[in-house]
Parts: sequence; C-alpha cells; structure tokens
Amino acid sequence: MSSRDELDKLLALYNIPRAGWLIRGVPAAFAEDVASHSYLVAVLALRIAHEARGCGGGIDEGKALTMALIHDLPEALTGDIPRPVKERLGDVVGRLEEEALGKLGFEYLKDLYAEMESATSVEAILVKIADDLATYLRAVSYLNNGFEGVRDIVENTRSNVMSLVPRLPGGLRECVQKYVASLLEYKAR
Amino acid sequence: MSSRDELDKLLALYNIPRAGWLIRGVPAAFAEDVASHSYLVAVLALRIAHEARGCGGGIDEGKALTMALIHDLPEALTGDIPRPVKERLGDVVGRLEEEALGKLGFEYLKDLYAEMESATSVEAILVKIADDLATYLRAVSYLNNGFEGVRDIVENTRSNVMSLVPRLPGGLRECVQKYVASLLEYKAR
Amino acid sequence: MSSRDELDKLLALYNIPRAGWLIRGVPAAFAEDVASHSYLVAVLALRIAHEARGCGGGIDEGKALTMALIHDLPEALTGDIPRPVKERLGDVVGRLEEEALGKLGFEYLKDLYAEMESATSVEAILVKIADDLATYLRAVSYLNNGFEGVRDIVENTRSNVMSLVPRLPGGLRECVQKYVASLLEYKAR
Amino acid sequence: MSSRDELDKLLALYNIPRAGWLIRGVPAAFAEDVASHSYLVAVLALRIAHEARGCGGGIDEGKALTMALIHDLPEALTGDIPRPVKERLGDVVGRLEEEALGKLGFEYLKDLYAEMESATSVEAILVKIADDLATYLRAVSYLNNGFEGVRDIVENTRSNVMSLVPRLPGGLRECVQKYVASLLEYKAR
Amino acid sequence: MSSRDELDKLLALYNIPRAGWLIRGVPAAFAEDVASHSYLVAVLALRIAHEARGCGGGIDEGKALTMALIHDLPEALTGDIPRPVKERLGDVVGRLEEEALGKLGFEYLKDLYAEMESATSVEAILVKIADDLATYLRAVSYLNNGFEGVRDIVENTRSNVMSLVPRLPGGLRECVQKYVASLLEYKAR
Amino acid sequence: MSSRDELDKLLALYNIPRAGWLIRGVPAAFAEDVASHSYLVAVLALRIAHEARGCGGGIDEGKALTMALIHDLPEALTGDIPRPVKERLGDVVGRLEEEALGKLGFEYLKDLYAEMESATSVEAILVKIADDLATYLRAVSYLNNGFEGVRDIVENTRSNVMSLVPRLPGGLRECVQKYVASLLEYKAR
Repeated sequence: MSSRDELDKLLALYNIPRAGWLIRGVPAAFAEDVASHSYLVAVLALRIAHEARGCGGGIDEGKALTMALIHDLPEALTGDIPRPVKERLGDVVGRLEEEALGKLGFEYLKDLYAEMESATSVEAILVKIADDLATYLRAVSYLNNGFEGVRDIVENTRSNVMSLVPRLPGGLRECVQKYVASLLEYKAR
Repeated sequence: MSSRDELDKLLALYNIPRAGWLIRGVPAAFAEDVASHSYLVAVLALRIAHEARGCGGGIDEGKALTMALIHDLPEALTGDIPRPVKERLGDVVGRLEEEALGKLGFEYLKDLYAEMESATSVEAILVKIADDLATYLRAVSYLNNGFEGVRDIVENTRSNVMSLVPRLPGGLRECVQKYVASLLEYKAR
Repeated sequence: MSSRDELDKLLALYNIPRAGWLIRGVPAAFAEDVASHSYLVAVLALRIAHEARGCGGGIDEGKALTMALIHDLPEALTGDIPRPVKERLGDVVGRLEEEALGKLGFEYLKDLYAEMESATSVEAILVKIADDLATYLRAVSYLNNGFEGVRDIVENTRSNVMSLVPRLPGGLRECVQKYVASLLEYKAR
Repeated sequence: MSSRDELDKLLALYNIPRAGWLIRGVPAAFAEDVASHSYLVAVLALRIAHEARGCGGGIDEGKALTMALIHDLPEALTGDIPRPVKERLGDVVGRLEEEALGKLGFEYLKDLYAEMESATSVEAILVKIADDLATYLRAVSYLNNGFEGVRDIVENTRSNVMSLVPRLPGGLRECVQKYVASLLEYKAR
Repeated sequence: MSSRDELDKLLALYNIPRAGWLIRGVPAAFAEDVASHSYLVAVLALRIAHEARGCGGGIDEGKALTMALIHDLPEALTGDIPRPVKERLGDVVGRLEEEALGKLGFEYLKDLYAEMESATSVEAILVKIADDLATYLRAVSYLNNGFEGVRDIVENTRSNVMSLVPRLPGGLRECVQKYVASLLEYKAR
Repeated sequence: MSSRDELDKLLALYNIPRAGWLIRGVPAAFAEDVASHSYLVAVLALRIAHEARGCGGGIDEGKALTMALIHDLPEALTGDIPRPVKERLGDVVGRLEEEALGKLGFEYLKDLYAEMESATSVEAILVKIADDLATYLRAVSYLNNGFEGVRDIVENTRSNVMSLVPRLPGGLRECVQKYVASLLEYKAR
C-alpha cells in the first residue's frame, strides 16, 4: 500500500466500535471506538510511567507509548474480534495482526508488537495494565448507564490489573500499585 | 443460556455495524447493522422466491427465509469478522459459528446453517444471491455518499451475484436473472 | 415503481426509528429502527414456532415468517405512526398500508397482510405475540438505561402477550406459554 | 397532564427526526430533528420580518414567532407523519394536532395554530415561507451529501416558496422576494 | 457574508452539542444541540409569558421570543465555550459574540442581545429563567440515564432559577413562581 | 482532583467533536472527536519520526509522542474552541490550558506543552506537522462526503504543513518532506 492507502486505512480506527461493548448491548453510536480507546491507553501509560518514576523506576517512555499506540492498530484491517473468539482462533490471529501491521506501514515495529503481546518487559506490562484500566473505567461508566451486560468486563479487567501489577519489578511496583488502586475505587453506583 | 440470555444476546445484533463498511471508512453511526442487513436479505429472498414462482420454480419459502434470518446470527456472539480475515482463519470459524448458533437457542438449525454455507440447494443459492444483492445495494448508496473505499464491494458483490444465478436450476433461473438484472442497474452516480 | 425504486424505498426502513421510543424520550441515535425490530420479530416467530412443534403444533413457518417480515414494511412509505394516533385514524390507515405494500412490490401479499392484522390464524397470532415480545424486551432494556417514559410500553406489551397466548389452539398453547413466560421474567432492574 | 409531563413530552421533539428525510434515505443519526427544524423556521421568520420592515411592512413579530415555534409542536405526541400521508388522512389529523396542542399546555393557542395552518394572515404566510425555506436549505445540503432521494423536496419547497411570496401584501412583498431569492440561489453542486 | 453564507452558518447550530454536557461525559450522539436547546428556551419563554399574563403581567412577547431565539446564536461561529471558561475570558467574549451576531445577519439586534445578557428588563429575566429551566430539565434526564457528572448542573440551574424569579416585578412574579416550582419538582430518580 | 476525577474528565475527550468540523456543517454523530484526532496525531508523529530516522535524524520519540498525546488534552476541561476565536482571545487561553493540564494530573508536563505550542524544537515541529496532516486527511474525506464548508481547512492545513517542513533541521528535512508530500497527494475527488 502507498502512504496514502496506509493512512486511509488507519482512519478506519475512528469507525470501529470495540466489539466487547457491542455484543454486550451498548449501541454503536454510544460505544467507544478503537482510536479513542488507544488514545486513553497511551495517556494512561504516560501517567503510570510518571508515577513509576516517583519510585525511581526506569521506564523507557518512548517504547511504552509506542506499544500503547500500536496495541490495537491491526484492527484497522482485521476489525475488532471479541476476546473469547480470539482465544479460540489460536496463532493464526497473531500472524494476521503482524501482517496487518506491515500493510499499515509499521513493519519495523513487529518485534515490539510481539514483545507487547507476550508482556515480557516492564514497558509491555505497563501497557497491559493501562489497557485493562482503560477498559475498566469505560465499563464502569457503561454500567452506570444501565448496560448490565458489561458487568463481567468490570470484574475481569479489575482482576487482570491486580494480577499484572505484581509482575512489575520491585523498584516501581509500589508507586504503580498505589495509583492503580486509586482508580479501581471508581466503582459503579 | 436461559431463553432470556439468548434473547439478550440476539438484541446485540442491533448494535453491530457490519465490519466491511467500518474498515472502509463508513462511520459507525452511519453504517448498516447486522440485524438490519439480515432483514433486507430475508425480504429480498422473499421477493426473489416470488419472482421464481413466475417461472414455475418450486422454492421452499419457509426454508429460504429461515436461512436468510440465521445467516449472520452467530455474529451476536462472534462479532462481525471481515470476509478476508474469515477466509484466512479456515474451519475454526465454522465451528465457532455452529457453537454460537447453539448458545443462542438455535442448535436445531445447525444442518440448515451448514447447507446455506455450502450453497448446496436452490434455497441456499437464493439466500446467497439475496445476501450479495443486499450488500451491493448498500454499497452503491455509500458510494453516492462519497465513501470511495467501498468500491471494491460494489464490484465483488455484483460479480458474486452474476456467478451465482447460473447455478440455479433451469426452471426458475430466467425469472431470477431478470429481476436481479433490474437491481444491478442501480449504479452509483 | 421499478424494482430499483422499490428497493431504494425499503432501505429506508433502516433509518426509521420506532416512533413509540422517540416520543417517550429515547434519542434517535439510540432508538431501535423498523428494520432491526422486524428482524427480531421474525427470529422470535421462528423460535416460537420451534417451541410449538414441541407440543406437536402444526405451524406453517413460511407463512409465519412472511407475516413477520412484512408486518411493518409499509412504514417505508408511511413512516412510523404512533399506535394511539393510528387507532384514532381508523380504516384509512389500513388502506394506506395496503397501497404502500403494493408500491413496494408486495401487492401479492395483501391478503396475508390483512390476515395478520386481524389475527385470524395461528400464524397471525404467533406473529402478534412475537411483535409484542420483541417490543417488551427492548422496552425493558430502555428502562434499564433510565428512559422512564417507556414504562407504559413494558406494561402494555406484557399484557398484550398474556392475552394473545390463550387464543392459540390447545395443541401448542402450552409450549408457547412456557417459552413466553421465561422471557417475560426479563424485568427491569 | 401536569406542567412536568407537558415539558417531558416537549423534550421528545429533540428525538424526532423529520420523516421526510428518513423515508428518502437520510440516516436517523444524520437527519434534522423537529426541534432543530422549528428553531430554524423561527429564526428565518425573525429575519424575514426584519427584511419586510425595510419595505415598511407591518408584521406582528410576536405573533409570527409564536406561529413558527408551535407549527410542528403537536408532533411531540403524534410523531412526524410524512406530508403525502397527512394529505390522505384529511381533517382527522387537524383534530389530533389541536388535541395534542392542548395536552402539551398550549390550548390557548389553538386559534393561532388554525390561522397558521390556513395561511390567512401576513404572519401565517411568512411562517409558511420560512418553513419551506428551512426545508429547502436542509434538502440542498443533503443532496450535496449524496442523498439523491431528497431531490423532489428541493423542487417542491422551492416552488412552494415562489408561490407563497406573491400572496404577501404589496407593501412588503418586494423586500421579502429579494431576500428569499438570494437564498434560493443556494443550489446543490 | 451573503444571505446564503449566513444561513449556511446558522445550520451549524444543529451540529453543535452543548459543551456542558460533553465535558461531563454525555456522548455527542446523545447530547442536546444548540439549536434544539434554543428551541426549548423559546417555547418555555412563550409558556412562562402566558402564565405571567394570568397575573396581569405585561410581557412584550415578540421581544422575549426574539431574545430566546438569539441567546446562543453567536455559537454558530464561536462554538459552545463552557461557562467557567467564558467567565475567565472576560469582556472579549462579549465582543466576539456581538461580532458573530453581525456576521450572521443580525447586526440590528445587538442592543437586544446586550439587554438580554445583562438581564435588565422583565423580558430578559424571563429568558434567563427559561434558559436555566431548559438546562435543568435536560440535566435531570441525563442524570436518570446515569450521567452522574451533570449533577452540579442540576443544582446550579435550579438555584439560578430560584434567584432569578424574585427579580421579576410584583405583578407577575407569583404566577411565574408557581409555574416554575411545578417544573423544579421534576427531580432525578 | 483525585486520580479518579482526573480520569473521569479525560474520558470526556471521547465525546468532544472537533469544533472546526461542527461549525462547517459536519454533524456531531459524524465528526471526529478530540481523542480520536489525538490518536491519529500520535500515530503520524510515530511514523514521521521513523521516516526521519531514514535520513539519520535524531528524534526523541518519547518526547514527540508525549507532545502529540497532550496537544489537545486541556480540551477535556475547556471544550474545543475554534481556532479563529482562540487567536482573538490572546494569552488568557494559554493560561487556561496550562491550568487545565494541571487539574487533569499533568502539571509536570507544562514546560513540554509550552515548548510544543511555541514549536521551538524538532519534536515540536514534527508534532505540529502531524497535527495539520491529520486534520488535512480528515478534511479531504469530509469534502468527499459533500461537506463543502471544510474546503478552507483543506487549504490551510496543507499550506501549514508546507511551511512547517522547511523549519526542520537539514538532516531529516528531506525524508520528512518526501513522506509528507506522498500524503498531500491525497486530494478530494
């Protein structure tokens, strides 16, 4: 694809409501899209990295932000496939996402994408935390709007976050833990 | 799932914009949802069956309409996965769709679903024609609204329809051909 | 109208939010459209017919599904007129709907439409039940979203369903009754 | 109804997309609602009355603005019934609209509403011109967005405006004519 | 600007969701737009003026309705700036709004706009009451939909209304007070 | 504000359609929101930095991405004020934005924000290019949808980009120039 075609495809991320909301009853005109979600994940990663610095944690911010920005980028070509379906599909999804990354002009970030997926670095764990936190916050607000179907997402993302934090190295774990806890207090009415 | 849960899930079809439009630039608040699309496919199947009768064609309408109604029903659980992705995923998608059908309360229609997918009966071919025609008509109208990205869908669905019609039995082929041709004249400005 | 014009008009059903929701405070971007509603009615009719077979009930499925698909089809030309207004308008609405059916290419279904309207057959009663059930389920979910104004629809459709079921013939009444009861348990929080 | 209920109903005007757009293919999330339309009619009436004063025309502005504000107000209860349907329904619609006006707390404006409907005063003619002009301007912009179906509305409203202006009294006709002509130049590309 | 350009700009009011809702979490597809809000303010002003007449209050309705119609009209050019931001910006906003009024073809109403802003006449106070009441009613309904963030608007507008009413002259204060009180009973569940 | 309140406010960026589109006629349900726009700016900054590396350009990616992510972040509190209005408001807007940054939990990034605003570093210039490019691409697509009013934005952003590129240091200017040129070819039909 030419640069123009690549960008054209990326603009589609504005239009893709996250499938997890849709299949739980949130109307498309109301549901968060992939671009907006990715933005929040990146901003949360930025904020968490700042908290981590308070504990002297050495985070490579450029790396963390890049991971956050590309974590759902392949969906511009694949659409958003619900998590339980993805889990059933196995390795082929990973290959499709990698190909998509290439077609969208980010071939050079394949290794970083794989690192993020496997959560094998501090930055990758941070981004996973940011991803689940962003989803948690959105889910809580949908619950407040009466979309009862999202309750499992509230529970699952909260529990994901709580199991990810202990995997952070000792130096910064406490500061992240404290910040994250203050957000998980944000419960549905 | 209880009947209530099954129905709850089915209501999600209202919220799922078809992925083919989204990844080609049509905004979610504008894009056709799976429930509406399925409705149009069923109405077109009804109409085409009527035309077929004009040539003395023996169509089992109950069967054709049922196929039309369930042809995208598994998407209430799987979301809408874009066609090129599906093709790459292979058999596993078929199994997931079959399972979804069961979870949604339509276990008893699995054979019919498989028959539709493989297009091995007159009714199944009719529904495939209706599916592609419905998508063609929508694509043409999006093209008129300036969504240039859908042009390949206009071409592909038109060509799908034209290759499906000859597979109909001689008795009704001509009547269907004539009706279908009158709709394919509906071109973008 | 040509086939093309007929279809063009039918596509409008995607755009028509049901008036009952709108005048009770549900925003247009949120309200169910006529095409989606008709789809759910048809799927519910399919499902109820299946339950009826469990009691040995002889349902003509092709007929029931056709009725479900066309029950609001004239609204592509007339728009959706709220029920209390329709009741005041008298016979003229019926004539307008019949004409609309003709203009949309379904002249040959006028008798079936009239049969459905007057609920004079098992299939027609089934479709009426499906229609009210579909509206009931939607109303309950809007109530959960805080649209207090739809409460009368929850009550009215529930009571309509409960008065329609006893009009079914003995053979299948019990099976339908049981299924329907499991859905009417779906109450607002 | 209590004042609260009346207002509750009026808020529904925000949710009611104008039926004329919907049945011509404009999506609900895109179509002008009745409240917004009524606002534009009132602002246009204000503006035209100002132009009329330039010719020394004596317009009762309070009366004209009141007519503009209430000209579609009954739709909060009746929904928006497409013009061709209304014409077929005859006098009963007028009675329903009058009743609706009463239920919404504007019983005391029934005579003014009737005067507006019959276009028997300068102010009423002005409001009719503003109504058609507002619809014309919206139709032209929808045409630019590729909604080819609204073309007849462009033609009809333009011709309505041109036949209404000569019915104005000599004193102000010319000034209104000049202003209106400058807007009717606003054509689709 | 030509008349055509002026109107073109005015049509934008349909598209501008009120900023107060957006920054408090109400999605754009759900939030009231400036045109719809202005319509409700005008209708409320009409209604309150009617109540005032019950106490013999002499209201110039043409003046009050004109004020209501133009009270947010400059936003067609300036967009909707949240109230706390406006307060910080000082006099420059007033000048920008006045200029906008001119560019939109309503130069001749600058004095009336200033009178409304400073609430120095009965009509201006009435419109301010209508403005806050309209916002109050909308806020209560958003609160019912679970948008907890708008709670401060419910409180502020209610208190604004209650401090505005006593500024009305004795002749009509009581009638307005009674009507307004019946609407402020409209609380969130 | 607590962390929870800060995040609550940030979620509002999903709801804020960019004012530039709204006042030029793009409906709110269709217009790009601030969060999605900011995402695209960050992704474009990432991509351009990659191109710059091809010429040996030394870009601090963490810094560039952070700037991109926060460039419109204050709008969560201020709403989106159209560019011409901002220019008239002078320094006070800068102070309000700085305060907003603090209230949203990013006090520590005030200097970086100021650096970005004044475009005094390579990274800041890159982000400005990305900002204008992202807006250009969106404007072109709205133009294709028939929103004629955005034409001035197409022209202005293109010209902004072309005047920004020469301000980049020699080492990377050429590579960025080449990439940017390939995107500016993306013209409206």
